[in-house]
Amino acid sequence: MVPQTRRSGCPINLTLEQIGDRWSLIVIRDVMFANRRTYGALLEQNEEGIASNILASRLKHLTASGLLTRSPDPNHQQKGIYCLTEAAIQLVPLLAHMAAWGVRHTHPSKEASLPAILLEKGGPSLWSAFMDDLRHLHLGAPRPARSAFDQLRTEDGKAITSWY
Amino acid sequence: MVPQTRRSGCPINLTLEQIGDRWSLIVIRDVMFANRRTYGALLEQNEEGIASNILASRLKHLTASGLLTRSPDPNHQQKGIYCLTEAAIQLVPLLAHMAAWGVRHTHPSKEASLPAILLEKGGPSLWSAFMDDLRHLHLGAPRPARSAFDQLRTEDGKAITSWY
Repeated sequence: MVPQTRRSGCPINLTLEQIGDRWSLIVIRDVMFANRRTYGALLEQNEEGIASNILASRLKHLTASGLLTRSPDPNHQQKGIYCLTEAAIQLVPLLAHMAAWGVRHTHPSKEASLPAILLEKGGPSLWSAFMDDLRHLHLGAPRPARSAFDQLRTEDGKAITSWY
Repeated sequence: MVPQTRRSGCPINLTLEQIGDRWSLIVIRDVMFANRRTYGALLEQNEEGIASNILASRLKHLTASGLLTRSPDPNHQQKGIYCLTEAAIQLVPLLAHMAAWGVRHTHPSKEASLPAILLEKGGPSLWSAFMDDLRHLHLGAPRPARSAFDQLRTEDGKAITSWY
């Protein structure tokens, strides 16, 4: 749930009040980088084995706090499609830094580190291009001339198939 | 406690497993930006009203996971002084991004936003200078020629007294 009272006015505290439980950021990561857009895809493909009740509560929380929107799937009226909001898209630099820190200090698996390493190598200009890709995919903005997805796919000749 | 099993090898997940509860990052924020170095200072001066048992458990967790070290206070043998490790100091860019996002999307108080705004304005070169200040304070590195603390104090003629 969105907290009704703020423990302090500090922007770091308030960011943590909004996204500071690990499962919220895991769900945003899966929507953002792996383009999983339905409850089913988010549940079944999640590498960390998120529980169905936790996923459902986080999707409600993220929707209520303005990080995701939910619209009916045109092909399955009962299913919802989740989209990132502009506020969520602006988490890209934070997630890129989180991933870069993780590569240095948490001994991640090699395969799972590749996107993080490419994101760090590309720096702010690549993050910005990636955010434009996300605005196209999630907010209906025009398709950008230069796609970060393409760039991330073809670096070193390897496809990052788990991404998108 | 440090998780014994990893839910996945993804560096974002592993970072969240290490620092992804909000109180851990609040404690690191207080040590880093307000230079609170003892259990007492961290408990009494915390703006969010951290509970004593939560603070004690997070200090143990952060020490066990290599983000803080604890050494005896030379003036009070029973008290401990906490220092940031190099891994914790490398969280500066992540916290700067978290603060910048919070300023834009969480309606923080004006006073509490000032350090975040100055950090964002200063960008990576200021973060780097700030990290050198922290290496001097916490790791015994030489005092840097240019102090980010001084720069953050004097910008706009205002002292950021809550910082340090």
